[in-house]
Amino acid sequence: MTAKPCIPKGTRDFSVEEMAKRNYIFDTIKSVFGLYGFRQIETPAMETLQTLMGKYGEEGDKLLFKVLNSGDFRSDVSDSDWADCNLNRLAARLCEKGLRYDLTVPFARFVVMHRNELTFPFKRYQIQPVWRADRPQKGRYREFYQCDADVVGSDSLLNEVELIQMIDEVFARLGIRVAIKLNNRKILSGIAEWIGAPEKIVDITVAIDKLDKIGLDKVNDELREKGLTEEAIALLQPIILLQGSNEEKLQVLRRELAVSETGLKGIDELEYILQKLSASALRSTLEIDLTLARGLNYYTGAILEVKALDVQIGSITGGGRYDNLTGVFGLPGVSGVGISFGADRIFDVLNQLDLYPKESRQSTQVLFVNFGENECGVCLSHLSRLRAAGIRAEIYPEAAKMKKQMSYADSIGAEYVALVGENEIAEGKITLKNMATGQQSLLSVDEVIALFV
Amino acid sequence: MTAKPCIPKGTRDFSVEEMAKRNYIFDTIKSVFGLYGFRQIETPAMETLQTLMGKYGEEGDKLLFKVLNSGDFRSDVSDSDWADCNLNRLAARLCEKGLRYDLTVPFARFVVMHRNELTFPFKRYQIQPVWRADRPQKGRYREFYQCDADVVGSDSLLNEVELIQMIDEVFARLGIRVAIKLNNRKILSGIAEWIGAPEKIVDITVAIDKLDKIGLDKVNDELREKGLTEEAIALLQPIILLQGSNEEKLQVLRRELAVSETGLKGIDELEYILQKLSASALRSTLEIDLTLARGLNYYTGAILEVKALDVQIGSITGGGRYDNLTGVFGLPGVSGVGISFGADRIFDVLNQLDLYPKESRQSTQVLFVNFGENECGVCLSHLSRLRAAGIRAEIYPEAAKMKKQMSYADSIGAEYVALVGENEIAEGKITLKNMATGQQSLLSVDEVIALFV
Repeated sequence: MTAKPCIPKGTRDFSVEEMAKRNYIFDTIKSVFGLYGFRQIETPAMETLQTLMGKYGEEGDKLLFKVLNSGDFRSDVSDSDWADCNLNRLAARLCEKGLRYDLTVPFARFVVMHRNELTFPFKRYQIQPVWRADRPQKGRYREFYQCDADVVGSDSLLNEVELIQMIDEVFARLGIRVAIKLNNRKILSGIAEWIGAPEKIVDITVAIDKLDKIGLDKVNDELREKGLTEEAIALLQPIILLQGSNEEKLQVLRRELAVSETGLKGIDELEYILQKLSASALRSTLEIDLTLARGLNYYTGAILEVKALDVQIGSITGGGRYDNLTGVFGLPGVSGVGISFGADRIFDVLNQLDLYPKESRQSTQVLFVNFGENECGVCLSHLSRLRAAGIRAEIYPEAAKMKKQMSYADSIGAEYVALVGENEIAEGKITLKNMATGQQSLLSVDEVIALFV
Repeated sequence: MTAKPCIPKGTRDFSVEEMAKRNYIFDTIKSVFGLYGFRQIETPAMETLQTLMGKYGEEGDKLLFKVLNSGDFRSDVSDSDWADCNLNRLAARLCEKGLRYDLTVPFARFVVMHRNELTFPFKRYQIQPVWRADRPQKGRYREFYQCDADVVGSDSLLNEVELIQMIDEVFARLGIRVAIKLNNRKILSGIAEWIGAPEKIVDITVAIDKLDKIGLDKVNDELREKGLTEEAIALLQPIILLQGSNEEKLQVLRRELAVSETGLKGIDELEYILQKLSASALRSTLEIDLTLARGLNYYTGAILEVKALDVQIGSITGGGRYDNLTGVFGLPGVSGVGISFGADRIFDVLNQLDLYPKESRQSTQVLFVNFGENECGVCLSHLSRLRAAGIRAEIYPEAAKMKKQMSYADSIGAEYVALVGENEIAEGKITLKNMATGQQSLLSVDEVIALFV
């Protein structure tokens, strides 16, 4: 019973300091979502395995946390199921539920289940933990929060425009300088079509996606391995290495992909989005980036990713348009576009750049020192007045030694310490000590309150 | 693949309307927690089964959701484990993790694991879902949020005083009239001692707890069944039926329990708390209630429960003092006192009394009707200005029929609809329609903003 307690690997406790920082991030994001008419939903942590399985590829199925059936979980398992080596089938007998792996599939399930109560376009956001049985490593956890905003039931590119404005606003508020990288799946499809290898689109984009990591030569090697002709590879070179301003890139693409209807459609979409955004004074850089191929099996139009400019870290936000969110649940034709903020990475970026404002700590503003029974009664009445004025205030609960009380004040990050002894009581005042400067002043309760409002 | 999707029984989706209401409740509670110096932590959804098992009684162990080990979950299970009928042992081989069953045990584990980083007293709050494989029924779910505040590492009764003030403040802010019922475990122990049946304390309090439901006669019958003598039962009568003001009750108790040191200690504690609170102008009723015996195996001092006065529903908040939170994890001597708000029931009470303020809906304040490409560009620039002023605003993403756009406005609860057509553009103005009154006015952007600030 007294073994040293621990938590499952890949999971984390969040201390009061960490939670204050995380709340600052989430509250910032929520405010911006609200300004754009997005509203919050929540779905259960557990979904049926029927909802989850087969949605994340074979690898994803393995990474699902499955929940043992309650009661006699053995009753659905025959001895041959057990003796058999098929772990998947055995797991399916032992478990009918699993933990949420992302927010997208539960959202699709939500839209289908509640389609008769919803009015489209439906703009929702969702901030909840997800669980993946990935091998834990630095920056990769088995439980982490996702923070998604999506519009479903509208094909309008205005949605892309607003989502990008939201991204810009969130990072401006957080004080993080970012580049927003844009691509369009239709352009990638157009490219594959144009070089005569439409069935190779995934291979091509996967290879292009590695450009930063392995360099052009190895990308070309990989394309060769995947069976692209030398001619196709040659045609691809200007595309892979596309340079210049967004206008210049669009111009090259429009020329090279002139034969591809799909490609031109993608170029039009990208141009429309850039044009609408050009009027809205974004603080972020906007950059067409054809190497962007995240979630390619999934996205059908816009693809976007956000990189922090001042910290070396992977993408801190991503998103794109998908055409058939809910088809897998029997409701075809629901298209959507969404973004997902990477809370853990944003947390790291803010830490590294030391960008948390002091108020985000939400620490106690006034700690009353406890001098004993009589003084305490007076403090309680002062406390009521301070709290009624919205000031975060508390009293040390015992008449402990001054040193202990002051060290508590330090540990909670109290801004001021209030001393109410015999003299103060006689004068109806409070001695207030500023913990940063050490300065002390004798003030009335009203004067103390005035310091904070 | 296209089977009608569903969610696991006993779990819920929360719609945007429900989430807005829940956020209103949680935000209210969080603000009050913050004013009293409580700060938030979070712990992982999964804990090791070693942490969870044996903490909630045999019944609780059965109600834990267990998570199947990832990878080859069969490798730790011998064929005889499988053939054997011991489900508990088999589950322990298949699973090493389980879902959080409450917030108290993970908090105890947190305190022990982080004791060297924490300064005591440690005042934390925690708002997270918990999971129990209970049979679902009306008002009882398999996933529900708990909302706990605790102070650990302090024996001072000031903590009880502040927790009760917090409860009072939360319900005052929510507009729910409540009675806060108080008891003390030491008084109950004193009673058992006094009637000469100290080992019967649990039986006695369980029986007393049923007074409301089954009446005095059946309580006495139950005490008889549990082996109490007629003499003991006779002695108990004035206690079970204690009436009058808190002062009168304390007076009777002080007289009856004069022989019990423990009982008198409990009476002193209760009196101290009531006396300190009498100075603080609570809006709630405070009521000594000896039938209150919740969590008796657990609490060692104060026990409290909150009842809504205007709605027939069980306790909506509870709490008490415990002396040995962390002993089971090898850290003895950490006492604490805490409260837990019943978010689901508070949600129901607010619904029944229709007490949600309009602002809590967080719905869109201005919806711009989309008349087409040209008008849309102008709207985007108006939208930027409104949002910069903190107004929740959006534009319908397509130039759909007016009727469709207005029905969307209704569905999202938009306060105003903004019409920007040729005339408005020429004049640099907005026609704003109040959705509640139907009234329309032609306003400049500044005038629109002025409506909301």
